[in-house]
Formats: sequence, C-alpha cells, structure tokens
Amino acid sequence: MSSEAHLQEDTDGVSDPKGFLAAAVSSDVRGKGDDLLDTGIVYSPSPCSAAGVFTKNAVKAAPVLDCERILKSGTLIHGVVANSGNANACTGTQGIQDSLKMIRLAEAACGSLEDSFLVCSTGRIGDLLPMDRIGPAIAKLGESVVGGIKFGNKFAECILTSDTRKKTCTARFEIDGKQVTIGGAAKGAGMIQPNMATMLAFVTTDIAASSNELKALLTEAVDPTFNAITVDGDMSTNDTVLVLANGESGVALDDKSKALFQKALYQVCDCLADKIVSDGERITKVVEILISGAANDIDAENIARAIGNSLLVKTSWYGNDPNWGRLMDALGYADAQIDQYAIDISYGDVPALVLGDPIPENKPKWKEVVSQARFPIKIDMHQGNGSYRLRASDLTEGYVDFNKSE
Amino acid sequence: MSSEAHLQEDTDGVSDPKGFLAAAVSSDVRGKGDDLLDTGIVYSPSPCSAAGVFTKNAVKAAPVLDCERILKSGTLIHGVVANSGNANACTGTQGIQDSLKMIRLAEAACGSLEDSFLVCSTGRIGDLLPMDRIGPAIAKLGESVVGGIKFGNKFAECILTSDTRKKTCTARFEIDGKQVTIGGAAKGAGMIQPNMATMLAFVTTDIAASSNELKALLTEAVDPTFNAITVDGDMSTNDTVLVLANGESGVALDDKSKALFQKALYQVCDCLADKIVSDGERITKVVEILISGAANDIDAENIARAIGNSLLVKTSWYGNDPNWGRLMDALGYADAQIDQYAIDISYGDVPALVLGDPIPENKPKWKEVVSQARFPIKIDMHQGNGSYRLRASDLTEGYVDFNKSE
Repeated sequence: MSSEAHLQEDTDGVSDPKGFLAAAVSSDVRGKGDDLLDTGIVYSPSPCSAAGVFTKNAVKAAPVLDCERILKSGTLIHGVVANSGNANACTGTQGIQDSLKMIRLAEAACGSLEDSFLVCSTGRIGDLLPMDRIGPAIAKLGESVVGGIKFGNKFAECILTSDTRKKTCTARFEIDGKQVTIGGAAKGAGMIQPNMATMLAFVTTDIAASSNELKALLTEAVDPTFNAITVDGDMSTNDTVLVLANGESGVALDDKSKALFQKALYQVCDCLADKIVSDGERITKVVEILISGAANDIDAENIARAIGNSLLVKTSWYGNDPNWGRLMDALGYADAQIDQYAIDISYGDVPALVLGDPIPENKPKWKEVVSQARFPIKIDMHQGNGSYRLRASDLTEGYVDFNKSE
Repeated sequence: MSSEAHLQEDTDGVSDPKGFLAAAVSSDVRGKGDDLLDTGIVYSPSPCSAAGVFTKNAVKAAPVLDCERILKSGTLIHGVVANSGNANACTGTQGIQDSLKMIRLAEAACGSLEDSFLVCSTGRIGDLLPMDRIGPAIAKLGESVVGGIKFGNKFAECILTSDTRKKTCTARFEIDGKQVTIGGAAKGAGMIQPNMATMLAFVTTDIAASSNELKALLTEAVDPTFNAITVDGDMSTNDTVLVLANGESGVALDDKSKALFQKALYQVCDCLADKIVSDGERITKVVEILISGAANDIDAENIARAIGNSLLVKTSWYGNDPNWGRLMDALGYADAQIDQYAIDISYGDVPALVLGDPIPENKPKWKEVVSQARFPIKIDMHQGNGSYRLRASDLTEGYVDFNKSE
C-alpha cells in the first residue's frame, strides 16, 4: 500500500520528519544590537546519511569548503549549524578557523562526534564572524535541541537575510502503512542565479538511504528546481543545498519507495525554489520562460537564461511592456543555434510572433498577460527537441535602491 | 616629416576628412510628429574603400545583413544612409525590402552606382519603417550632400536614440607635409555590451587604403575600445562600426604612414567608445576595471565582464559602496582560473585585498575613490600575464525607470 506524495507549504519544515529537532536564537551576528533570530541548529540524535550540492563559484566561503570536506569523508552526520547576517566568505585564514569552530561548538553542545555537524553561513561577504557572540549562542542551541525542541519554523526564520518571508514546506507519503516525511527550509532573495545550487536550503527526511543514493537523487531534484531560477544573475559564494536522512520512519529507500521519494523530494525542492524566486529582492513579477524546439536542452537553457537575465527584458516586464523585440535580442546573443525566421513567441497562449512574423493586432492581449504578477512566455525555436523551464523575476528600481547601500 | 596624431573632441566628425559631406533631416521616424533629426547621409563623391564590424547577435537587423553583403561583394562605396528611432530588426520580409529601398533611394539621390551605399538603423525593434516619410527625406538629403553640405555634426545628432549628447571626434596627423584626417560619430546609450561591435559608429578618413587593410586595422582598433565597454550587458541586433576611406588626402596607407594611422584610428574609436559608456542610460559612474595577472587574456576578459555586468556590483558603485565582496563573488563565477587566496584588489591605488586578505583599515579611502564619478578598480590575479581593460557603468533606478516603459 502506498499513497501519492502530499505537499504542504508554510510548515515547520526541517523538524517535521521523525527524529529531527531544530532551534534558533539571536546572537546579534550583524552587530546591530537587535534580537533578530540569526543562529540555528538542526539536530538528529540518530545518525544521518547526508549529501549536498554547492555553488560552482570559484570563490567559496569557508563553510562551503567545510561541508564539502566532511561529506566527502563519509562520516555520519547529526546536524547542521547555520547563521545569517555574515557569509564568512573572503575572510582568509581566520574565516576557515571560525567555520571549523562553529562545527566543534555544535558537536560539543549536542555531545556528538567530530565532523558530525555541517555548517552554513549567509549574509555579507568579507567581514569576520563575531565568534564571541556566536559561541555562547551555539551552546544554548545545543541545550534546546538536546532537550527535544522542534522549532523548525524558527530555524527557517534565522537563516533569512533580505528575504521578506520564511520559506518552508513538507511532503509526506505512506508506504506499507508507514509514513515518510521530507521537510525543507530555504533562504534566497539576492545573489540568486544558480548554476549549481542557489542560496541555502536544508532538507531533512526520516527515510533510510545511503549518502550516495541521496546525492544522486538530490542532484536530480536540484537541476530543474533550485538551478532553474534567477533573480539577478549573480551566483553566490555560499550556495548550498543539504539533505539529511535519519531512517526513523522505518522505511528504506528501495525499488518500492524510490519513485515516491523522488517525487516528494522534487516537490519540496520545487516549492522552495519557487518561494525563493517569488521573494527576490523587491521584485514584482515571476515569469516562467518555457523554451521548446531548441536544437538541444543546453541551447534551450542558454536561451532561457539570456532572456531571464537581460536587464532590458526584466525592466520591460516590470513596466508591463510586452516588448518581444527585447526577447528576440536576448535570445539572439544566447549561445544557441537560431534561425530568426523560424521562431514562435507567445505571452501565455497569445501569439506575438509566428515563424518570425509579428502579430501586432494581438498587442492589447499581450499587454494583459504581461500585466499579471505571474505569467508564462512560451518560445518555440523550431530547431529540434531541446526544452528548458526557467523562472525569472523582473528588475525594479527597488532592487537598485535596496542594493546600492551596504 | 611626420607628426603625432592629434585628437579633438566634439568636432564635425565624419565630414571633417577631405571630400566627405554629410547632412541630416527629420522624417518623423518615431511617428510622434516632432521635428527631431532622425535621418542622415554621409557621402563622398570620390569612391571609398570600406570595412565594417558587426554584432555577433544571431538575430541581425536587415540593414546589418545588407552592409555585410555589400562589403563582402567588394564594390566601391560612396556613402552611408542612416536613421534612428526604428532598428528595422525582426521586421520580416518587409524589413529586408525596406532596408534595400533605403540604399537604392540614397544611390538615386546622389547619382551613385548600385550597392555603393551602406545602411544603418537604430531604435525600437519589431516595427516597420515609415518608408512613406523616409523616402522623401532621403531624396532631400541627397540634394544637400550633392550640393556640398558638410553637416557632420547634424549627422551625429540624427543617429541618437536615448543618448543625451552627440558623440563626435576627429584625429589628424601630418606626413610629408600632407594632412590625414579621421572623423568619427557614434551613438550608444542602451543595449550596450559589445561582443563584437556595439551600437552605431561611423568613421571616415581621407587616407587611401584597401578594404582589406581597413578591415584589419578596424578590427584591431575595435577590440580594446568599442568591444571593451558595457552598460547593461545586452548585445544589440544592430551593432555596427563602419569605416570609409576616400584617399583625398593624397596619403596612402603604407609602411611609413601605417603606425600613425593605426594610432589615430585607435584614438578615434577609443574616444567614441568612452563617450558611449559615459552616456549610458541614466548612469552616474564609469568604472575602469583593470585586470592583470590572469592566466591569459581571455580569463582576464571573462573576469572583467563578470564584474562589469554584475547587478550587485553595479548597484554598489551607484551607492558609493566599496563592496569588494561583490567583486570577489563576481570574479568567482567568471569562467577563469582563480585562486581566491592569491588576489589583490585596489580601488584606485588604495589596496582593499592583498593576496586574499582584506585591509579593512583602508575602508574610508576606498569609499572616497568609489564616490568619484570615474575611478579605476585594479585586480591582480597572480595567475599569469593575462590582462584586460573594461569600462563599465553603474546601474541606477533611473535605468530601470527609463526602460520599463515603451
């Protein structure tokens, strides 16, 4: 007996699967004297297999290097310690020491073995972490989670930077009368253009799976979700997606459960990715760019990204302007096989261009579509079978205003 | 006897070399009923050898296709007809016919042979040209230039779109008592990220040179000038740089004159390129990104372009924020060989990062540099001998506001 995977949004997320605990506190990482939640722990008393995908940026933050090292060593994992407000990136030797110290403090606080904690930081690049404040905070967090606190919701809050809202969801399915749960939390907002994984995302599950199995399934789920969104085209130094599996559901990842788990994991990643692009810094629109008929999938992706990252395209969306000329210009400089006289473009289902010929009488209808807060643009290249879906945001004066100051 | 090339800005430009005539009129291309100069002709009664470099965008405007075809045929050229307000791009079969018609009308108006005129259009993509108004305008322009009008300055005005000012310059040098003149006019403003040639630029000279020689020297001059600027990262469908040489100076391009001509041509291209980036849409700053020590020149260019096109970097410049962390993030995702612990960054001559270690005590000085309207950022990668110079603008709310509406 099995059931379809069922997804719920705005849940406790990472603390929903059996045996996962979570807590968050304020350690004033930003040094502003406020009591914003900024430091958190996810903890499983049962050891977890784990996997991660990380930024492809050549400039990697110290915590990213630590996660990669620990996951490569294959040790069992008990949890993740995270902070917002400071990315611990480009912080030299001291940053490397601070990252390792966060791990050791979390392990000590939870009575766990060496290299059984992963670490994530997000926020401003180039400043040293205030370890004098973060240290005591981690000790306090350890007490909370060892005491059984399941505040996944607060954990989801403590990782936020310029996000305006928490991003959590939980998928559940049943198999042979046992329930499997996958919980997730993410943060996004700026420096969002995934080429590997974007931003921070944490996924916990009570299925039993090997690290290698998790890695394969996570990679597969991340490509069409976290990797297929863009806000500003900037790939961050800290992008991380982690998955921890503690096996407490009593269900193992096997031929029987795999398809359901795969689907549920995809749903969680897709839901979190959508929440990230929808909450991009000062955006007003999410546009789904659907490329079909490209010579191959890579061409399709190049075309979608050229469009989704074009400043002129993004500003025209913001202004409700169905400026398909800018779409044509952007796809023209994508690295792809293109015949400008064989392209169909439509806004929603309203054709703008058919085989390269404009249908100007449809303009009022394009305008209606582009005025919506979320709409699809469909482009058929008529070159082959390549396809790609990219979710992109518009670009607003608010984004510029928000990012011009420190 | 020869003299150094001497450059003057804000000249008549294309009509300064001997034997070049120019005129401009209004043909209300935009259909707004105003009398904005929007159509122009450059004409040399003596036949010219000519060369051009064009956009690498796969979606090329009809006039670009015509210029490429005519230059390839090797016919002698008598002039260029140009309009602003409409790019004649993505205009299907009718657009191809209209482009050819502009050429034929200009030839008829000046009594020139078939395929002896080049054509350029710039402006909005996707609308048909108002040929009923442009046709009579070209006839009128023909009368003016055949009558000896040398209004290069008005020609420079008629090609402008969102530019706020004319862009002209003239270089002169003497050789054996004879003066050689190179005049130039350009337009830029938006959709500026050269990967080949950006925007429209016209260069005329009275030196005598073959088309092949001109092509080689033009390509060489365009790479570090027009191709090394960025406003918004969008490569246009119409980018064109043309050079016409009519030999009227009595000086031939030979071993003796070549170095001087090369330098003067570079000066003209560099001056026009600088005027384009300085007049980018609603920009407030020009930043010279100087990369050295990259593994090779291509790496250096990739690094410079990643930085110069990063929205987060551009907005931080706008806000006078010396946010070197964003520079590090951007160079980290450039396609280049990078060791984050071997990078020096300085704002002007003030170090921000030495071998990957921040020098935070210099922050007040960085801030002074970044607050200037024009400043250099120097980055030494310590990987090899590759170098590149890119001039980039900041990104402002004004750019978004300007481009959000039709």
